[in-house]
Amino acid sequence: MPSPLCTVREATWGLMRAHRMTTVFGNPGSTELGLFLGWPADFRYVLGLQESVVVGMADGFAQASGNASFVNLHSAAGVGHAMGNIFTAFKNRTPMVITAGQQARSILPFDPFLHSAQATELPKPYVKWSVEPARAEDVPLAIARAYHVAMTPPRGPVLVSVPADDWAVLTEPVAPRRMSTLLRPEPALLAEIGAALDAAERPAIVVGAAVDRDGAFAEAVQLAERHNARVFVAPMSGRCSFPEDHRLFAGFLPATRERIVQLLGGHDLILALGAPAFTYHVQGEGPHAPAGAVLVQITDDPQAAAWAPLGTAVFSSVRLALLDLLARPAPPLRTPPQPREAAPAIAVPAAGTRISTAYLMQTLARARTRSSVVVEEAPSARPVMHQHLPFFEPGSFLTMCSGGLGHSLPAAVGVALARPDAKVIALIGDGSAMYAIQALWTAAQFKLPITFVIVNNRQYAALHHFAPVFGFAPGAALPGTELPDLDFVALAAGHGIRGQRVTEGTALAGALERALASNDPVLIDVAVD
Amino acid sequence: MPSPLCTVREATWGLMRAHRMTTVFGNPGSTELGLFLGWPADFRYVLGLQESVVVGMADGFAQASGNASFVNLHSAAGVGHAMGNIFTAFKNRTPMVITAGQQARSILPFDPFLHSAQATELPKPYVKWSVEPARAEDVPLAIARAYHVAMTPPRGPVLVSVPADDWAVLTEPVAPRRMSTLLRPEPALLAEIGAALDAAERPAIVVGAAVDRDGAFAEAVQLAERHNARVFVAPMSGRCSFPEDHRLFAGFLPATRERIVQLLGGHDLILALGAPAFTYHVQGEGPHAPAGAVLVQITDDPQAAAWAPLGTAVFSSVRLALLDLLARPAPPLRTPPQPREAAPAIAVPAAGTRISTAYLMQTLARARTRSSVVVEEAPSARPVMHQHLPFFEPGSFLTMCSGGLGHSLPAAVGVALARPDAKVIALIGDGSAMYAIQALWTAAQFKLPITFVIVNNRQYAALHHFAPVFGFAPGAALPGTELPDLDFVALAAGHGIRGQRVTEGTALAGALERALASNDPVLIDVAVD
Repeated sequence: MPSPLCTVREATWGLMRAHRMTTVFGNPGSTELGLFLGWPADFRYVLGLQESVVVGMADGFAQASGNASFVNLHSAAGVGHAMGNIFTAFKNRTPMVITAGQQARSILPFDPFLHSAQATELPKPYVKWSVEPARAEDVPLAIARAYHVAMTPPRGPVLVSVPADDWAVLTEPVAPRRMSTLLRPEPALLAEIGAALDAAERPAIVVGAAVDRDGAFAEAVQLAERHNARVFVAPMSGRCSFPEDHRLFAGFLPATRERIVQLLGGHDLILALGAPAFTYHVQGEGPHAPAGAVLVQITDDPQAAAWAPLGTAVFSSVRLALLDLLARPAPPLRTPPQPREAAPAIAVPAAGTRISTAYLMQTLARARTRSSVVVEEAPSARPVMHQHLPFFEPGSFLTMCSGGLGHSLPAAVGVALARPDAKVIALIGDGSAMYAIQALWTAAQFKLPITFVIVNNRQYAALHHFAPVFGFAPGAALPGTELPDLDFVALAAGHGIRGQRVTEGTALAGALERALASNDPVLIDVAVD
Repeated sequence: MPSPLCTVREATWGLMRAHRMTTVFGNPGSTELGLFLGWPADFRYVLGLQESVVVGMADGFAQASGNASFVNLHSAAGVGHAMGNIFTAFKNRTPMVITAGQQARSILPFDPFLHSAQATELPKPYVKWSVEPARAEDVPLAIARAYHVAMTPPRGPVLVSVPADDWAVLTEPVAPRRMSTLLRPEPALLAEIGAALDAAERPAIVVGAAVDRDGAFAEAVQLAERHNARVFVAPMSGRCSFPEDHRLFAGFLPATRERIVQLLGGHDLILALGAPAFTYHVQGEGPHAPAGAVLVQITDDPQAAAWAPLGTAVFSSVRLALLDLLARPAPPLRTPPQPREAAPAIAVPAAGTRISTAYLMQTLARARTRSSVVVEEAPSARPVMHQHLPFFEPGSFLTMCSGGLGHSLPAAVGVALARPDAKVIALIGDGSAMYAIQALWTAAQFKLPITFVIVNNRQYAALHHFAPVFGFAPGAALPGTELPDLDFVALAAGHGIRGQRVTEGTALAGALERALASNDPVLIDVAVD
């Protein structure tokens, strides 16, 4: 007997419940209203005031929950505004089911208002799959497929374009299915990597974001300890994948070929674990690895494995590969390497002097708890952050892997929605904050206990750091890089959030401690040098 | 003798000067810095704090100047954030040369940080042309071609992706060329339209945005007067293409098939002039034109001509077609139609009652001068605006043709930059304003004398108007449509702009008059019912 029919809307709600996607991030337009007729009480709608904010929030939510987030965007205009953060979600490998409104099928021949011409082309190349089903009845099946594609390694965003009149059409309900979301490595090639690792005299591991993303933090520590291998963090890694106070922790690789080769020098085997080998930001010359070193790679991204210029690569979920490696007999224990030097403590800035970024990071490191989550987007401050604000636990640090500003302020809101237990700290540069400042409003509406820390140096400072690479004299004028006259306390108030500006070092610790103790969102605007 | 070589950067500057594109709208990243080394003093950089703001400003600037604007975006992240307003620029038919940074050619094999994978695909389908030249030396030629493509009817955005290291490469300078930007109609088919118009007893003209965009405002008035034809404004027209106090002016067509047919009823010939025939927002039934009416169309958009379901269409620049029509002998003068009724005057709201949107529009109509420019994005208020805030002159009114929010607040900034002589009024809904609120900062930095009027009804009111179409009961809850707790005066202050909130009708006229008299930007937040 065939199943009794239901509406496309009801069939979709059923799938959303089955796949734990009852939080919807969006900004509705007329072409999306049909999804919300009789909107069930067990669903939650999270409004973002611009679609880049919507997708940024959904990214943080998915990363913190480990499940695909559900996004509903407004036709071509909404998908358009969202494309910057869809690009970032793609680079972050964040699973995300994006539905986008489309005009009603019967008027598509007349290029109607709000028509998304070639709706499946617009989000390319930054979705894993996109579809506009040829029949209304097949929309729920498309959403089911979209979920499974998003959750398959390497994870990422997908898009389903839904004509406005489809939601009310009768169709068959779609039974939720289960599908594996992990890949185990090809045994023979992994065994070769295992044997090379056992045979190496001075192995090093370079951990990327995929270690933490894949829930393989503890297994990475086990592997490093078994081999007494020094552990570096891959260039531009978006998550904390190794405890930064561990005796084997060796620091952060920059995104520069020559420096990577120099820092890895002396190792005879390098394992890139859940990381590209390697991410470059600027042009480089010479070899991609130190002379005499063997490079091996374990990654769930077949493209990253394919473009690597040298070395053996195994395509696998990181945690399953680590479990297979750890199941091998342990080799004789090597001599431990020298531990890394601790960063020097920074003194309180004298009255009337600017707060240094280093002092801000140190003060924040002391004020927060170990289990707090920092969502960061302060590119020029990141090296200093790495020195003075270490992370120790899985899921304790997030930033974007794309280089696109405007992700982390909304992502912090998404993390706080997914993890009401956690204290979320958004550590955001002034330039970054202005990319998605509207996310403050959503934090205020949901009364999320986020501490927003603005690292305010009144410019796009990363560009001043970079300019000499492109031939600029030190201190040369750079058009479009100064950011005067922004008042973040007023901006916070405008969005319904309390704010405080801190200019004196002596006031910083107290301000941060009060903000971290608050049950409401608070913004602290820190004037740094 | 071959020309002496220059850098790609210098060749590009030469083209930008030759084509009057010395104002650059952008937000720079590391991959774009090379364009700005030794940045000449006769160029102006206009920084937007998010790329949707950058493109919105460039759109207003191009529309107000009648020339392509020059945009410089940051790689995939910047083009991504910009896509919503690139979509709108495409629908607005705004000429725009967009350059986007790309990583250095030598590291593209390694999927580097900030790499724009498939850079020419990302902006599709909303650019007329996109290219990443295969050699650095050919970048200036690509930019020259991009300019000409952008300026060819129908105008629109184009994109050139430029690897970071290209700007310093030596190449030959490109001599600026001239190329026609107008199309004259096919004579035989236009003559048929002319004859049909002469033979009609009760002709009507439906003017679209392309009339004003094409500089054909005066010619449209001449044609209407010659034929004593009633003149309607096309659904969702983005510009004022006919004086709204003219005796022949017949009002605004909604984007609904049945209502269009009803309003055009009784006419035996309908000329869609610089307009689609017709733009629909919701599904409709029945004929596309009144029974017995002949539909003819003149448009510079071959796609819009091709999809029209009936009637004869001539593909042409609007003004050249009108000049050809006006060159025909005038037919005998018809009896003039009945003039339209004037809108009733609205009384000052009693103390303690909300200001109505109608009263706001009437007050603004009295406070502004006829030559001021209104850039509007207040979708739910637009019908009321059309009743109480008429426009009379070419270039006096702009809004977006796309349905995408986030265009008009930055576009107002671009108009003010292009027309320092004009008083620009940004008339923006609260929901629309939050899409691109960062544009206030650029207005403050350039001290532009813009009056920002926030039509603040604390919700996405257009959706409440629309919900019954999708089966919602009147007053039913709509998730994600309420906008409480925004303080626009604080938001203005945060961006460096003076603001005032107006809640009492008696205070409105004074507040608007003071703002309009100011030489600085001012924001007036009007609480409407």
